[in-house]
Amino acid sequence: MIYDVIIIGSGPAGLAAAIYAKRAELSVIVIEKAGLSGGQIINTYEVDNYPGTPGISGFELSTKFREHADKLNTEFVDGEVTDFNLEGDLKVVTLEDGREFRAKSVVIAAGGAPRHLGVEGEEKLAGMGVSYCATCDGAFFKNKTVAVVGGGDVAVEDAIFLARLCKQVYVIHRRDQFRAAKSSSAKLMALENVKILWDSVVTQIKGDEKVNSIEVRNVKTEEVTDLEVAGIFIAVGYLPNSEVYKKVVATDEAGYIKAGESCETNVPGIFAAGDIRTKELRQIITAASDGANAITAVEKYLNSLE
Amino acid sequence: MIYDVIIIGSGPAGLAAAIYAKRAELSVIVIEKAGLSGGQIINTYEVDNYPGTPGISGFELSTKFREHADKLNTEFVDGEVTDFNLEGDLKVVTLEDGREFRAKSVVIAAGGAPRHLGVEGEEKLAGMGVSYCATCDGAFFKNKTVAVVGGGDVAVEDAIFLARLCKQVYVIHRRDQFRAAKSSSAKLMALENVKILWDSVVTQIKGDEKVNSIEVRNVKTEEVTDLEVAGIFIAVGYLPNSEVYKKVVATDEAGYIKAGESCETNVPGIFAAGDIRTKELRQIITAASDGANAITAVEKYLNSLE
Repeated sequence: MIYDVIIIGSGPAGLAAAIYAKRAELSVIVIEKAGLSGGQIINTYEVDNYPGTPGISGFELSTKFREHADKLNTEFVDGEVTDFNLEGDLKVVTLEDGREFRAKSVVIAAGGAPRHLGVEGEEKLAGMGVSYCATCDGAFFKNKTVAVVGGGDVAVEDAIFLARLCKQVYVIHRRDQFRAAKSSSAKLMALENVKILWDSVVTQIKGDEKVNSIEVRNVKTEEVTDLEVAGIFIAVGYLPNSEVYKKVVATDEAGYIKAGESCETNVPGIFAAGDIRTKELRQIITAASDGANAITAVEKYLNSLE
Repeated sequence: MIYDVIIIGSGPAGLAAAIYAKRAELSVIVIEKAGLSGGQIINTYEVDNYPGTPGISGFELSTKFREHADKLNTEFVDGEVTDFNLEGDLKVVTLEDGREFRAKSVVIAAGGAPRHLGVEGEEKLAGMGVSYCATCDGAFFKNKTVAVVGGGDVAVEDAIFLARLCKQVYVIHRRDQFRAAKSSSAKLMALENVKILWDSVVTQIKGDEKVNSIEVRNVKTEEVTDLEVAGIFIAVGYLPNSEVYKKVVATDEAGYIKAGESCETNVPGIFAAGDIRTKELRQIITAASDGANAITAVEKYLNSLE
């Protein structure tokens, strides 16, 4: 069988694409490697910014997305894509167990993951004060003291954002200057409730049920300090799951697949949706929107075929 | 008081923007002219494509959006924007009763409306077989006979889409050729379950509780035919509510405010979100995504100010 479209990944982008594809009566199959739909939100304690569902758990929201796709009789396959041939008119996708699927088009919605610090306490306290998304979780730390780790644009913008709502913000950066844009760096440094710890790294995150403090080491003086914080926002980069696709579609220096709002990549018939593509804001709502836009682009592409 | 941002309109785009602005602790006010939030979806009988909430009524979904914004203590003002000064650093918005609001930035999320035919039965049967959005409502007409009115890209793409799921599709166009792209026009004309009625206009939509048939008149022969259909999809254009803003922000020939995914217009500090901006796909999910993207752009803009 040749499907109209293969969707790789079933986080918010992939599931939204599936919903739009099924409602458009396209023949579609969704490939998920995790054994469970939802992507990064499965493990999110609380999602408060998907419009219409305030204060829902990430697991519950991802279940709602999956049920929506199931209600439309979407066909799911468990497996990981390890090989493919995407360049011709007929796209072939191969899984790790050798199963092959063929389609006229492919939507890559394989997501990504924030880079971790790899320090003690980080995994244990993820969602309990350890966050990788200030836009998502900042509001839960109103009037509290938090730390931001990183020195790029995202870290600096996160810190400015958090300074508006938190009592105190520590910014921990391992170098002695930011990589972020000068204007926002200057803005951050002028804020009264922000303290910047240059040349410093986090060496441990402490707490039982939730974050209580972090251990910070100055890499020049070797001085170790304990900072009492309720939350730590880690903004040290993001790893798109694009490694396997780089040989076919164009990516930027950070590994994101180059695609605009229409989700079109440089390869005809191949679309990238959600966190894996180049975009300004990686959120559930923007990922789901990508799913809809990608299928619209798929339909236009299918209409253009002989 | 000078707000960080004024949001004009409280459909999905405006409400999503409000949710993101409040969670970012921006000072924000939302202006709504209709006396009720939700925009076009208020009157939508069933929404089945907002991921996570299958088969919800438009009114219920818009209520959920509004409640989400209310839960975050969003400040709403009833009124219609009739004048403004948006060009300087200080943006001033004036309502019809003379009230003035001042802010550093403005998100225009004033929406729009599909152009109507203006024929008997159209208003009465809206949502009961009369639809202005095939992507939204097509799936409700699986295996039924429907008509599409129009000859542009949207009409032709809608008809191709509907032909995949409906038993029979009539396309009614008042001219003797399509304005749509040649490739999709050719594709449509080759479909077996599509019948094109050239030089024809719909003169009446008939039915009591739901659409039963439409009356079609050939403008050359004056012949009048009754077609039995369960649905009629009207795709004769869309009217963005941008009239009042045209003197300040750049719009395209159809009246949409020129803005990409970031929602930035040509005027610094002015953003356009949702159906009112130039975009490929006008859906609840893409409008809500715009709200999130617009506030991210607002934050960057505010960070760039002195």
